Amino acid sequence: MIAREGETSYANNSSLQKTAIWKAKPIIKDSIQDLYSTSFPPCVAIADLGCSSGPNTLLVVSEIINTINNTCRRLSRPSPEVQVFLNDLPGNDFNTIFRSLPAFYDKLKREKGPEFKGYFIVGTPGSFYERLFPTTSLYFVHSSYGVHWLSQVPPGLDDSETGVALNKGNIYIVESSPPNVLNAYKEQFQRDFSLFLKLRSQEMVPGGRMVLTVMGRTCIDPWNKENCTTWELLSMSLSDMVLEGLIEEAKLDSFNLPYYTPSTHEIKDLIQMEGSFKLDRMEIFKLSWDPTLTEDDGINKNKDQLLVYDKFKSAQNVTKMIRAVAEPMILNHFGEEMLDDLFQRYMEKVAEYLGREESKYVNLVVSMIKE
Amino acid sequence: MIAREGETSYANNSSLQKTAIWKAKPIIKDSIQDLYSTSFPPCVAIADLGCSSGPNTLLVVSEIINTINNTCRRLSRPSPEVQVFLNDLPGNDFNTIFRSLPAFYDKLKREKGPEFKGYFIVGTPGSFYERLFPTTSLYFVHSSYGVHWLSQVPPGLDDSETGVALNKGNIYIVESSPPNVLNAYKEQFQRDFSLFLKLRSQEMVPGGRMVLTVMGRTCIDPWNKENCTTWELLSMSLSDMVLEGLIEEAKLDSFNLPYYTPSTHEIKDLIQMEGSFKLDRMEIFKLSWDPTLTEDDGINKNKDQLLVYDKFKSAQNVTKMIRAVAEPMILNHFGEEMLDDLFQRYMEKVAEYLGREESKYVNLVVSMIKE
Repeated sequence: MIAREGETSYANNSSLQKTAIWKAKPIIKDSIQDLYSTSFPPCVAIADLGCSSGPNTLLVVSEIINTINNTCRRLSRPSPEVQVFLNDLPGNDFNTIFRSLPAFYDKLKREKGPEFKGYFIVGTPGSFYERLFPTTSLYFVHSSYGVHWLSQVPPGLDDSETGVALNKGNIYIVESSPPNVLNAYKEQFQRDFSLFLKLRSQEMVPGGRMVLTVMGRTCIDPWNKENCTTWELLSMSLSDMVLEGLIEEAKLDSFNLPYYTPSTHEIKDLIQMEGSFKLDRMEIFKLSWDPTLTEDDGINKNKDQLLVYDKFKSAQNVTKMIRAVAEPMILNHFGEEMLDDLFQRYMEKVAEYLGREESKYVNLVVSMIKE
Repeated sequence: MIAREGETSYANNSSLQKTAIWKAKPIIKDSIQDLYSTSFPPCVAIADLGCSSGPNTLLVVSEIINTINNTCRRLSRPSPEVQVFLNDLPGNDFNTIFRSLPAFYDKLKREKGPEFKGYFIVGTPGSFYERLFPTTSLYFVHSSYGVHWLSQVPPGLDDSETGVALNKGNIYIVESSPPNVLNAYKEQFQRDFSLFLKLRSQEMVPGGRMVLTVMGRTCIDPWNKENCTTWELLSMSLSDMVLEGLIEEAKLDSFNLPYYTPSTHEIKDLIQMEGSFKLDRMEIFKLSWDPTLTEDDGINKNKDQLLVYDKFKSAQNVTKMIRAVAEPMILNHFGEEMLDDLFQRYMEKVAEYLGREESKYVNLVVSMIKE
């Protein structure tokens, strides 16, 4: 996550990601309990990949440390030292995380008592599509909302002979995307996820655990309404601006997201093919597009009442979340001036959509054991 | 080092520190060669304590990596993986270091060839007067210009009954300092350095090596012209501003530097008393106050020619260096408005001094082996 401050920043708009972490918590807990019930290293090295910089960063660390302590207490074993490697790209705002650490350590000390001392939180800058850690050094790897981001925009989104954009007018997969576009995205994810597994398998100890939360899909077709429509509405907003001459058509045609929502089958197959990990468990949960809504909060089981109560307020919340995530990429490609206009248009489209369709993201939590 | 940008920042005024690193290089080299000639861990964990954020930060890393590679080549052994922990206080500008890493890794890859892959550079925020690393995890610890900074301003610089400042008008030890002030500083260094050794001994593997470069002194009296006079001239500049009503007297009286230049004897005695390390080697070198001057550059052996050639230009260089180091503390205590005035006065005093006295800092390089 690129370092940005202010109202549109990720640090101020990360409640969807927070809910995803809470949803995955029982699985993280089980995974760490299993790990620590069978091996008792004096120091447990843990990595959080794509830790970002915001209120969620230390939330994950805190949960993991609590789980280890509670497991040890139940087993009447001394707590191990814990070394936590917080990873994100070198552009991430590590300074802000680091400056919040003294207060975090003080809070831990108050909560756990002075005997719990051995927590060492460090920052590891780099792409998780490269080696980040020494061989056989990690016991537990966590990543939430990281691995649906590809290492690059897939190659092959332009016609190899004419150079014409194949995904014309769109920034991600849509229902009408030509097969070449679908395959380009699918294959990039296959390469990236297999590489991710291979690199982590080199870095992890045998029996080590990994829990990943990604946006995904339950259907076989790579197009799924929930996780593609948010981007399709952004494509439509950009297209409107092209029609009005506010953005060059070629600019839009050359912009595609390095993002992919894998299916449960794709994840299973790739883990099996890569061969270093055993799939322990995979769970699916849905989250409302509007990150401020809980499941009972305006989204009911009754088919007539699937829509959010206040589509305008919800559209505002959805827009904040999407803008926080996408702004650095859009700014980089289109420049800063068009951002407010774009996200105003986007918000209107989202409101219209929320008024007529159910809006939930599909999320996958994948728990694995290093063979 | 607090994150600051611009002309007066440490990052732009750290050539003295760079020279000190170069001077200590042969000792670092010998130490790593000895370490790696007797033990061959597959991964060598290294810490640089007080790494700061500037051109010197990765210079040290680069030197250490080169030495390991050259030693391995000479011994016909494969290079180990190297995990480098860059440590400084949480306020240090780690973001800038991290953003320079991709280019640094590219340069390493070009220089060493693609087979040299296993370098993992991470950031460890925290005080080196606390535990920073897991037990028995480090093979080599380096710190340059770190350990002469105390964990705090020594207590006991005010009269315990009257509360009157004992170090009146001064911000550090001067020749006329009362014994209580000298002892307060001496004892704070004893506590801090002993604690530093104890913490590092817990973190280091048996046989691990540590090389520290500190500003120090060769004389027994804690007052030494070289390393105290730079601060005395700053005290005098502050006192002038008090006399002119620009600074409150009480403000100056309550400001003291958390700094101490130990003697070779103090270092030896404290290492022996703490008992975890064997002193391998201690070397003394002198550096001109003006960091742009090499030893043959204006400072000659001829007694009549001990003075710098251009006292005004040199005074400017000295002031830049001292301002880069002291500005965060002075700003914090006295506010920002007085800084330019203060350092203008300081520069004039330095120029006058350079015109009549030899000006060199005493530096100690201490190489130790963990028992």
